[in-house]
Amino acid sequence: MEKDIFLVGQGLTRFGEHWDRSLLNLMDEATEAALKNSGLNALDVDLVIVANMLGERTNNQAHLGALASALLPHHPPALRIESACGSGAMALHTAAAYLESKRAETVLVIGVEKMTDVSVDEVSAALMGAADSELDAPSGLTFPGIFGLITQRYMHEYGLTREQLSLVSAVHHRQGKENPFAQFRFDVSPEKVTASPMVADPLRLLDCSPVSDGAAVCILSTTHRSELRLAASQIASDSVSITERASITSFSATRDAMQRALKEAEIDREEIRALETHDCFSMAAIINMEDLGFAEPGEGISVYERIHAGDYPTFVNKSGGLKSCGHPVAATGIKQMIDIAKQLGASKEQYGLAHNFGGACASCGIHILENLDASS
Amino acid sequence: MEKDIFLVGQGLTRFGEHWDRSLLNLMDEATEAALKNSGLNALDVDLVIVANMLGERTNNQAHLGALASALLPHHPPALRIESACGSGAMALHTAAAYLESKRAETVLVIGVEKMTDVSVDEVSAALMGAADSELDAPSGLTFPGIFGLITQRYMHEYGLTREQLSLVSAVHHRQGKENPFAQFRFDVSPEKVTASPMVADPLRLLDCSPVSDGAAVCILSTTHRSELRLAASQIASDSVSITERASITSFSATRDAMQRALKEAEIDREEIRALETHDCFSMAAIINMEDLGFAEPGEGISVYERIHAGDYPTFVNKSGGLKSCGHPVAATGIKQMIDIAKQLGASKEQYGLAHNFGGACASCGIHILENLDASS
Repeated sequence: MEKDIFLVGQGLTRFGEHWDRSLLNLMDEATEAALKNSGLNALDVDLVIVANMLGERTNNQAHLGALASALLPHHPPALRIESACGSGAMALHTAAAYLESKRAETVLVIGVEKMTDVSVDEVSAALMGAADSELDAPSGLTFPGIFGLITQRYMHEYGLTREQLSLVSAVHHRQGKENPFAQFRFDVSPEKVTASPMVADPLRLLDCSPVSDGAAVCILSTTHRSELRLAASQIASDSVSITERASITSFSATRDAMQRALKEAEIDREEIRALETHDCFSMAAIINMEDLGFAEPGEGISVYERIHAGDYPTFVNKSGGLKSCGHPVAATGIKQMIDIAKQLGASKEQYGLAHNFGGACASCGIHILENLDASS
Repeated sequence: MEKDIFLVGQGLTRFGEHWDRSLLNLMDEATEAALKNSGLNALDVDLVIVANMLGERTNNQAHLGALASALLPHHPPALRIESACGSGAMALHTAAAYLESKRAETVLVIGVEKMTDVSVDEVSAALMGAADSELDAPSGLTFPGIFGLITQRYMHEYGLTREQLSLVSAVHHRQGKENPFAQFRFDVSPEKVTASPMVADPLRLLDCSPVSDGAAVCILSTTHRSELRLAASQIASDSVSITERASITSFSATRDAMQRALKEAEIDREEIRALETHDCFSMAAIINMEDLGFAEPGEGISVYERIHAGDYPTFVNKSGGLKSCGHPVAATGIKQMIDIAKQLGASKEQYGLAHNFGGACASCGIHILENLDASS
């Protein structure tokens, strides 16, 4: 990192179905919570970055940077970033660049999505904007369909069973049960996952993160300090269409961003003791474990088998992940950072990592947070 | 500026109605032109920033950063910026921040919009995403409606006549006639503007910039050099809804960004000899002249009266502006920068300024370009 950047404030709405709330109202609640948490004055914020993917289609609202700027009395400069479901990490990364450039000293980074105002068909169509409208969408694919294909191929290559796959959502629900901000706070047994309705063979309903509303806010600063320092911020790209990839059972953008992030933080993978990863579908979590280097290719499920058995040293999606917390798409990357901060605060461990991606990982952002109060 | 940033490449498609082209295809043409113009290898680009407003609604395509990254063989990191019709300037500003942060050395900044694939009703509704969906849209306002109200109020306050207003589009059409990239390359007399069909009283059809397709690309670099140096890059925000403003006949975001830009460039306003300003409607151009400080409040039309009479020392919208060039919304801010570069190259003057805004100037970006080969 070119400069020391600190996470000085965090705020969340509960994720869920907020029928009576607007995009602005959700941003307002999370912003107020983050400002309160930071102890800063609103006037300390000199840039606002909003991550949002679906506003134009689900809320008839673009221009969310300017809209959010009005939450602060002095209307600071503001912009919106979009990189599909990876918008949150992309906004954090852009905030880091602004801070390092010295164009800003304290940035309010808001992730927000309001997905439940339209029909499931409409939100599914809108989410397909994250895929390639010329190469993927005309075939009738949806995102569950894309990840269904990926799962089929993965099972073919590595012999993963339906019963093994069901462990992923079971672990996420068990861990999310205690999270007051999670959308679904109840246990789901592996058997229940396997028996849930088919969505896109072999993916079933309980393999899929839900449609959600919610907002998450991080305040990053170079002039104000906290015990949480950004140790790395990296992004990477891959082809948007899965038809243009050599393999669909491994995501190169995750591998690229991870390699650069570890180098930037100057740490080894084994030093990461809290990890939030992008489990938009259960299959993604398994692939992520491999691409992040926590398992060999084909063995990602072993991480979840060990967590399920109570024998894994790193927190993985301790928040409940996208499956239990909900997935208001552009808010997710910001929420992951907040969860990592909470986990490092509770565990007194030194390093945590947030891994967020867009589409079938055509864009990926990885952030490593260092707890300067770590006991180690 | 924290570092010296150079404009090292420029590429444009003609703006117009490209029925047979896709977003990707337009980006490809402008990117190829810019790379050729720069003399750089595609591999020199280490970040791609795409400005786009309407892709989700008019093309079912989000995730344009990742999509554009595939235009280059090495899939560099990429993101998309949106700030309504000011997306282009916001993307250039963000590119400057990335360059100053040293996270990138050469950034491909693409502005693209494909607006003609949907009905006029649909594109009008989509453009209203730039306004406030809770405070403005429910009243049935469209953007011509918003600028119609602004024009009514301006005429009431300052006595501007319909005949005076018609000079603005006449000047823009006369100047755009010679621009090979302009959508409308023909003269329009002031009388024809006044006689054109009513859109939103008192604004008539020929007061309004058109619906357009097109792409524009600038390559900015700190490691590669040219004779064109970025002297200032500033952005500002204002309330999105016009209902929350003390005045609707002056735009504070323009005034704020202009003040900071002149300070950053360390020049006086009078040193600007080429100016591209955001004339989404003829009325906007007049207000802009005042907010940029080239005329006193109420006297902005005097600039156009003097240009019409052949007696004004600064090029103003020599390209033809949004009215004659067309306004593929997120491409406009990038195109303005290219036009300023061309004008400084031809005139050998030292400073040019591009002024781009979103909505009714709820977000504004101003860039000042310095020609290091200036004869002065």
